[in-house]
Amino acid sequence: MFLNDTLALWSASIAPVMPPPLLATVAAEYAPIVLSGVLLTLVAIFIASKIGSEVAKRLDFPPVLGELVAGVIVGISALHLVIFPEGGLAATDSLLMNALQLLNNLSPTAIEAVFESQSEVISVLAELGVIILLFEIGLESDLRQLKAVGIQAVVVACVGVAVPFIAGTAGLMAIFHVAAIPAIFAGAALTATSIGITSKVLSELGQLKSTEGQIIVGAAVIDDVLGIIVLAVVASLAKTGEIDIANVIYLIVSATVFLIGSILLGGIFNQAFTAIVEKLETRGNVIIPAFVFAFFMAFLGNAIHLEAILGAFAAGLVLDESDARNELDELIKPIADVFVPIFFVTVGARADLGVLNPTVPENRAGLLIAVFLVAVAVVGKLVTGWGVFGKPGINRWAIGVGMIPRGEVGLVFAGIGSASGILSKPLQVSIIIMVILTTFLAPPFLRVAFGQTDKTIDPVESTSD
Amino acid sequence: MFLNDTLALWSASIAPVMPPPLLATVAAEYAPIVLSGVLLTLVAIFIASKIGSEVAKRLDFPPVLGELVAGVIVGISALHLVIFPEGGLAATDSLLMNALQLLNNLSPTAIEAVFESQSEVISVLAELGVIILLFEIGLESDLRQLKAVGIQAVVVACVGVAVPFIAGTAGLMAIFHVAAIPAIFAGAALTATSIGITSKVLSELGQLKSTEGQIIVGAAVIDDVLGIIVLAVVASLAKTGEIDIANVIYLIVSATVFLIGSILLGGIFNQAFTAIVEKLETRGNVIIPAFVFAFFMAFLGNAIHLEAILGAFAAGLVLDESDARNELDELIKPIADVFVPIFFVTVGARADLGVLNPTVPENRAGLLIAVFLVAVAVVGKLVTGWGVFGKPGINRWAIGVGMIPRGEVGLVFAGIGSASGILSKPLQVSIIIMVILTTFLAPPFLRVAFGQTDKTIDPVESTSD
Repeated sequence: MFLNDTLALWSASIAPVMPPPLLATVAAEYAPIVLSGVLLTLVAIFIASKIGSEVAKRLDFPPVLGELVAGVIVGISALHLVIFPEGGLAATDSLLMNALQLLNNLSPTAIEAVFESQSEVISVLAELGVIILLFEIGLESDLRQLKAVGIQAVVVACVGVAVPFIAGTAGLMAIFHVAAIPAIFAGAALTATSIGITSKVLSELGQLKSTEGQIIVGAAVIDDVLGIIVLAVVASLAKTGEIDIANVIYLIVSATVFLIGSILLGGIFNQAFTAIVEKLETRGNVIIPAFVFAFFMAFLGNAIHLEAILGAFAAGLVLDESDARNELDELIKPIADVFVPIFFVTVGARADLGVLNPTVPENRAGLLIAVFLVAVAVVGKLVTGWGVFGKPGINRWAIGVGMIPRGEVGLVFAGIGSASGILSKPLQVSIIIMVILTTFLAPPFLRVAFGQTDKTIDPVESTSD
Repeated sequence: MFLNDTLALWSASIAPVMPPPLLATVAAEYAPIVLSGVLLTLVAIFIASKIGSEVAKRLDFPPVLGELVAGVIVGISALHLVIFPEGGLAATDSLLMNALQLLNNLSPTAIEAVFESQSEVISVLAELGVIILLFEIGLESDLRQLKAVGIQAVVVACVGVAVPFIAGTAGLMAIFHVAAIPAIFAGAALTATSIGITSKVLSELGQLKSTEGQIIVGAAVIDDVLGIIVLAVVASLAKTGEIDIANVIYLIVSATVFLIGSILLGGIFNQAFTAIVEKLETRGNVIIPAFVFAFFMAFLGNAIHLEAILGAFAAGLVLDESDARNELDELIKPIADVFVPIFFVTVGARADLGVLNPTVPENRAGLLIAVFLVAVAVVGKLVTGWGVFGKPGINRWAIGVGMIPRGEVGLVFAGIGSASGILSKPLQVSIIIMVILTTFLAPPFLRVAFGQTDKTIDPVESTSD
């Protein structure tokens, strides 16, 4: 009784002091619907990736090409199942979002909020996918072999950056009368080879550890770094009207220190990693320390304004030499199998093939520029094979072809160029077309260049059966 | 020359028609920083989970308890490394966000946008974590054995829902003079056992397949369903002032049809799954179809306004009987090892132990209510063991203790109650305290109830070495 009264008094005295609880934010209120959207989108991505890769495999194409095409089919170009708001698209353009809206009786404002949140989540999952892909590729690459082709890779990378950059910029200015800054930007967009796509195809062809494969991957890593530096320089050039020398030096130094430093310190990281793994007794004793290292390196790569995938690749290279490596190889596989398709399908889904439509008058200027950029992109990388010296029997065509795909890095250029207002729409569209075509052409070309028209021996594939 | 001029003309004629490219949305502009935030948060979560689980293991506690405590330490209660905006927290409260802001020279508005995006992503990753956890638990559960304890589980679940609900609601109204609707809501928050935490602990104790373990998991599944129905009813009661009978019936019917239906149709799903897996030749041939099924079932669970985890659990139960099951068991492990700690650490991180501080006057009324709710929560579930009939040798204490932890479902109640404005702050805080204490107390109590004070035999643990 006494307790009762005291409490009643207490409650009464507190009640007016307490503000009403905060109303939920939009995010909290629609959290279950965002989760539904993410789950549905992942289901669509997984089904598309499996159908695409299986069809590609049966047609004797690399599975990754099938995943890209499947992405194009479910994406903005056709089915509108997996789309993103960046291109000015709204939730009403998405079949999945329309279904969710009907199912949950949502207002137009609410479904837009859900669409943005779920797109954000899928984008980050795709980025984690390419980070895990590069980590796995790093684990599969042999550092000693990569060191052996180091100089060759540097030469190939430098040729592959310089030729398309100069030819592209000069051509755009001379033939198409594009102003200097957008021309330089578009030229820069031609520089960076996509490590992800090339490495996946090389791995599928069983050529990742061949001399050609190692030179391609090494050069792709280096020209990624060079490409990012070029991007940073050109973007700051566009912002300020002049090149910021300090920033250029900072970027060059940090990229060099980062990659070479992590490779040199690899032995120390390895010993620490092995020691930690041996001491842990609970579930995830290998995979969690590996992911802590990979994600932290990816963060570092991002933090010093390079790329997250560069850090993940370096982490994989380093752990490649650790004692727990074989176990790690097995553990990373199912995780990569789940995450990596999200990346490839969304790259395809974001590519709007509608800009290729020649019946729309505005597309025609873009189409001619696109044809020019694709030609420069292909020829500018093909010549890199002849930069290799002192390796008489080397397959120069294979190296040149291996450097062609631009993929995600090219898309980063197109995105930043359009966001900062540097690129006109025809130029932006041309860069996207260049990225799509080089990405789509490279895998079959690479097969031909390596002379593999019969059934491939695929060490990665065979272990998953 | 002709081509040149034509193109120049084209460009000139198109240029004024083309609008300047859209400026990037906040999301696109800060995408690399959101990724950095997600990577850093994941690194913090992974390190915390490993330290927590290893310390717990060495102190002979279940690792999952260590992950929860580690979550509390890195979360809102202490280190502020992993926090979420729901509690009215801003980016400036987060150490990681402050570091990111310094590193990238961001404006206060920009860092808030980054904070919200990365919190959204981490929240969804945590939800995917509990979905994958329940899928794995479903895979580990034996459906035939669960069917054998079906009636027992139903009785235990009904007792475990009715006793705390009635005692809690009546006590709050009689002793603490709480109004009817908030009292009913708080009473309802006492009903649903956390399958996740209990199953993890049971699995760690090697008791998941014992009769007691199967009754507990079965009852937890059923009282989760019952709890969600109660939540839906109470929430609609609070909104409209009256119980929507049609909705109640809809929820009861859909939940029953969903679970029993998926179990009955299990054979058909299994054959389809096995047939698909056998036909696929590319990487991910087992794990991707399994995830398509699990995520789609989770979506269905969410779509019919039950819970995603219920669908994932049902999917696991169904695939448990498929031919590819052993392979799937192995493949799901590293994925669960990566995702599940995100869930447990964030549950801990969201729990604000600061509301326990008795030196703050406002907390005192809440503390007494909390003591009452904890007592009802513990006693109301302890008695459920005596609902089991016809099993003479059964460990009734173990069943009662196994039903105690409320975990994520209780937190859902607290969240919705505070979002809808039904719960006063002391009540809301009391529910959170009840959730924390029941969650923290259950694992050691469960060990004692099962009489395992010596080293446990852990089938899950031993396979990861």
